[in-house]
Amino acid sequence: MLDKILDEPLSSWLRSTDPIGDIHSHIVLSSRIRLARNFKSLQFTNRNHEASLKDVESRMRGVLGTLKAADGREYSNISLDKLSDTEREILVEKHLMSPQMGQKLPYRSLVVADDASVAIMVNEEDHIRIQTMEAGLHLQEALEHALKIDDAIESKCDYAFNERYGYLTACPTNVGTGMRASAMLHLPALAMTGRINRLIRSITQLGYSVRGLYGEGSQALGNIYQISNQVTMGISEEDTITQLQKVLEKLVQEEVKAREAIRNGDFEAFEDRVWRAFGTLQYARRLSGEEALGLLSDVQLGMDLGVLPQHSADVFNELVVTTRPNFLSKYAGKESMTASERDSYRAKVVRDRLAR
Amino acid sequence: MLDKILDEPLSSWLRSTDPIGDIHSHIVLSSRIRLARNFKSLQFTNRNHEASLKDVESRMRGVLGTLKAADGREYSNISLDKLSDTEREILVEKHLMSPQMGQKLPYRSLVVADDASVAIMVNEEDHIRIQTMEAGLHLQEALEHALKIDDAIESKCDYAFNERYGYLTACPTNVGTGMRASAMLHLPALAMTGRINRLIRSITQLGYSVRGLYGEGSQALGNIYQISNQVTMGISEEDTITQLQKVLEKLVQEEVKAREAIRNGDFEAFEDRVWRAFGTLQYARRLSGEEALGLLSDVQLGMDLGVLPQHSADVFNELVVTTRPNFLSKYAGKESMTASERDSYRAKVVRDRLAR
Repeated sequence: MLDKILDEPLSSWLRSTDPIGDIHSHIVLSSRIRLARNFKSLQFTNRNHEASLKDVESRMRGVLGTLKAADGREYSNISLDKLSDTEREILVEKHLMSPQMGQKLPYRSLVVADDASVAIMVNEEDHIRIQTMEAGLHLQEALEHALKIDDAIESKCDYAFNERYGYLTACPTNVGTGMRASAMLHLPALAMTGRINRLIRSITQLGYSVRGLYGEGSQALGNIYQISNQVTMGISEEDTITQLQKVLEKLVQEEVKAREAIRNGDFEAFEDRVWRAFGTLQYARRLSGEEALGLLSDVQLGMDLGVLPQHSADVFNELVVTTRPNFLSKYAGKESMTASERDSYRAKVVRDRLAR
Repeated sequence: MLDKILDEPLSSWLRSTDPIGDIHSHIVLSSRIRLARNFKSLQFTNRNHEASLKDVESRMRGVLGTLKAADGREYSNISLDKLSDTEREILVEKHLMSPQMGQKLPYRSLVVADDASVAIMVNEEDHIRIQTMEAGLHLQEALEHALKIDDAIESKCDYAFNERYGYLTACPTNVGTGMRASAMLHLPALAMTGRINRLIRSITQLGYSVRGLYGEGSQALGNIYQISNQVTMGISEEDTITQLQKVLEKLVQEEVKAREAIRNGDFEAFEDRVWRAFGTLQYARRLSGEEALGLLSDVQLGMDLGVLPQHSADVFNELVVTTRPNFLSKYAGKESMTASERDSYRAKVVRDRLAR
């Protein structure tokens, strides 16, 4: 299963549920819930207390069957120190774990469902971080799934929980629900019209965090943004999601409006940009990761607005993953590639994919 | 015949004689001879003496049959004041006459052979300027053709000729042979490697003139340069051509060397540039004339170096003409197009031509 997770360009939760029609499904790429949990009577991960680290890992190994019983999926436990550096980086590039987990440290593992819709980081900042992912805007479903997993684990081991503060976590910013809900949005029209920066500022002022999925803030590569809640105390999981959902729907509306503005503006200039991006992706012999994501973003928007034929619903999502440096190395079957070898290989992968 | 000359993108003298193989034929696009002549006992054109202007024009009208007898071609006389501004500009863009002839002035005409290999400007700076054109590096053939036409005209009307100085011309820089020999060269590799500027300086110091065919000097659009002799006194026509031929062969050698350097250097970077140029030409929805010529130059070099399949021997030569502003307007059937309409139409013309 590890091979499948490493090799597949597209995790099943990222596959479009609605391959052609719905414009919204192309704006909100995915939804994610993360719950930070720690076990009672064990030291926090950052204390580096070997017995506790070991205990956490073995507990998680012990609950695989319970997890399967909870949601019917096959689970496996991947010991991260048994992976190569590239393999760990791929799990990071695929958003199955955080960049911190890319380092080679003992007793770290990833518990992952066969369809990659659940990934539990073991001994990251907290003892466990349960993550559930859904394609499109489906925070509620992701939360239900996360709580199911959460309950299943709690039925086997007690969490560190305080009546007044809620779940106790290594970093005080997570105390309370321990929940971070987030969505990955493709906002090319807002980036093109320049409205994105003002929107990011307002959303940040409302207490949400906005990050480029690759790259930060307005430098978001491929115009992909991740929006998440920051507050975890004094508000329930349900309310957090309801409020975040409103913010996301507002952003989607703004993106739709920006797309309308492009439609009603100098549309030929837009067509020119889209077709040139397509031509470059189809023919370039060298592509940097940054350029590839930018061109892919233009091409996806071009497909959404009917300039390009809908090449394949998932070509954008897929290439966004495939063109990342480590995935690319793995794909090429070479553990170490120079940046320039990667640029050549990236161009080839993109050409081949577009030719299909 | 005027329609044919105006409408055909490629004058027959510009068609490659050697469609696929010979690299030299793709470096030297064409050769041209121009002879400046004035008739005895008539005032120079710049004196604006109506009787003389009229006399010159009617004499030329009278020699059409003689010209046909001389080289077997059909000739016609085009009165320039009967053409639209766009039509006159097309004749300029096709290098059948000089930019000065683009103005609407009385008694100006163009005597032209059916295959456009001979074009005689009537009442330009001199009474007549006989021009002959050949595809590839064929200065000698062009000279022989020009002299044949010259003799035919002289058999009917006396030229202003002085035993000591030679042919008398309106501008002293043409006195002597009255001949300007020139060749049109495509030098993309020398431009790419930056060697072109030093070469232009040396050639200029040797007494030759180097101009961009469109645009000046190192700004030469499409990397097309026109090299011609400057000296017309104290040297015979034959010697002028022999010496110019040496300079041109040297330039061709340098271009071939620069192409070898590209082949032996970072060839993938070159392939990347060529394929991107091809992709842009194939897909862009707007192209400026300058961008089109630059991309076409890259694509032609790519075909010459085997990166792109030899699309069609004449696609470069043809599109270099077709994408010029006035030809484009005529092609679109619109006398007046805005710059932006032209950019859209230019992109369409290029796409359609490449799709063939």
